Amino acid sequence: MAELTKPTIGFIGLGAMGQPMALNLLRAGYPLVVYNRTPERSKALSAAGAQVANSPATVAHQAEIVITMVSDSAAVEIVILGDNGVIEGLQTGSVVIDMSTIAPKVTQKIAAKLAERDVAMLDAPVSGGVAGANGGSLSIMVGGEAAVVARCLPILQTLGQKITHVGAVGMGQNTKLCNQIVGMGTLAAVAEGLRFARASGLDVTQIIEVLGAGAAGSWQLANTGKLIDAQDWRPGFRVALALKDMRLALTEAEQLGLDLTGTETTTDMFERLVRSGAGELGVQALGAQELNEKGSPWTA
Amino acid sequence: MAELTKPTIGFIGLGAMGQPMALNLLRAGYPLVVYNRTPERSKALSAAGAQVANSPATVAHQAEIVITMVSDSAAVEIVILGDNGVIEGLQTGSVVIDMSTIAPKVTQKIAAKLAERDVAMLDAPVSGGVAGANGGSLSIMVGGEAAVVARCLPILQTLGQKITHVGAVGMGQNTKLCNQIVGMGTLAAVAEGLRFARASGLDVTQIIEVLGAGAAGSWQLANTGKLIDAQDWRPGFRVALALKDMRLALTEAEQLGLDLTGTETTTDMFERLVRSGAGELGVQALGAQELNEKGSPWTA
Repeated sequence: MAELTKPTIGFIGLGAMGQPMALNLLRAGYPLVVYNRTPERSKALSAAGAQVANSPATVAHQAEIVITMVSDSAAVEIVILGDNGVIEGLQTGSVVIDMSTIAPKVTQKIAAKLAERDVAMLDAPVSGGVAGANGGSLSIMVGGEAAVVARCLPILQTLGQKITHVGAVGMGQNTKLCNQIVGMGTLAAVAEGLRFARASGLDVTQIIEVLGAGAAGSWQLANTGKLIDAQDWRPGFRVALALKDMRLALTEAEQLGLDLTGTETTTDMFERLVRSGAGELGVQALGAQELNEKGSPWTA
Repeated sequence: MAELTKPTIGFIGLGAMGQPMALNLLRAGYPLVVYNRTPERSKALSAAGAQVANSPATVAHQAEIVITMVSDSAAVEIVILGDNGVIEGLQTGSVVIDMSTIAPKVTQKIAAKLAERDVAMLDAPVSGGVAGANGGSLSIMVGGEAAVVARCLPILQTLGQKITHVGAVGMGQNTKLCNQIVGMGTLAAVAEGLRFARASGLDVTQIIEVLGAGAAGSWQLANTGKLIDAQDWRPGFRVALALKDMRLALTEAEQLGLDLTGTETTTDMFERLVRSGAGELGVQALGAQELNEKGSPWTA
């Protein structure tokens, strides 16, 4: 059945990810109200037909569904629960979808506050990076009540290709952290293997092909491995953001009573890159021989 | 062009891998002479039509191609260069193919000794485990001179499905170590991610599927991950053997001047399992919650 009218969507956070995501909603015909802390970032959206609000509360006042896509737990708390926050403008029966990657515990706290106002919340962090945001091909991991997920599904399908409902509120964030533990840990293994290959005189291009066909094969080897082979450190997913995600995962693991020594080491590897001035490079810089061996100041 | 006569092959080392590999050669019509330190292991081969020799030297005396498949660097040195070793029986123009996983430096030392007798050497370690050995579907990473590789290719193709010539003598071993660094490091990441998933209340089966479709996907997640999900710790590839390979990789990395902190941590994880009595379990035991958190004595 076709939707007769599309709900107005509020979108808060127009960074590298949020901007193309908001544009995709606009292009799909959703009336859009946007807010960004730095107002200049709203210009492209405004030019494309979005209304620009002057606070998260104003966004919420005009929208039935409010999406937040900001940098971290503190930023999500401020835009939703802070002064002039989303919570001050929301109408009963509306939905907040937080698509940032933040601490599951913070998600659950915010959801409880919103529930007191009869507002539902979904946590829907994404993977797929800026390319996925641009192409509407993100993978979206959703936590929340099934009925709310169903209601928001057309919106999520505008933003992503693979939408998975993984459990109650907070479980989207846990899934995302799980994804980062596995994905970044796999990349760390690929990076060390290819550094070993290069140092021992092997043909890195051939090694990626040979290993990729067997039990050492992975998305990271096939894709990020190629960037390491080409010594191309330009960002897709940045080291500094990976470090933020890994620290979140370690904090959550500690609260769960888990000792994740491999994840700690991978986090240390990212920290070392950041200290060397490589925080704005792509995560494939884990495979940079010079940086790892000399620890010298880094230039992209 | 069909081969008119097949060369006689000597096969030394009839363990879990060597026995099915030798049987595959016999079934393919190669005249076979075998030797194993523990003579009982030769019985199945003898029953299938292989000649049984009483020393590596005797094997070499009767064979044009000698394959070794033993446990470690020391064992390869003993069977090839030791008393009554292969080198004492070899004829000029024959070839030694070492398919064990050993230190590349030891491979190069043995190759140099054999070259003094006009005997060529290939290092051809494998991946694919006992299942691959049984099915003749191993991946074989070959170091050595191209002409020698070409001469031995039909034999290698009897044992494996994917044969890759990766460079000079020793490079097969470097490729195998690279494969273990990446494969076991990837598994460590999968193990910690799935432990996190389970502890946070996620559905591990669903997480394997969701993560597998994106940038966290790998052979280890799709295959070994299923064993972790099922809490099935029975061996395929054993923890004790993985530890041996990881230690080899770290020794070689040190000689190359590489600092592989992730690989060190993965090695520590395997060491901890061995200390807990889990050395004979499959490598997927890295994902066992109880063992990792309680460090309690382990029962399979």
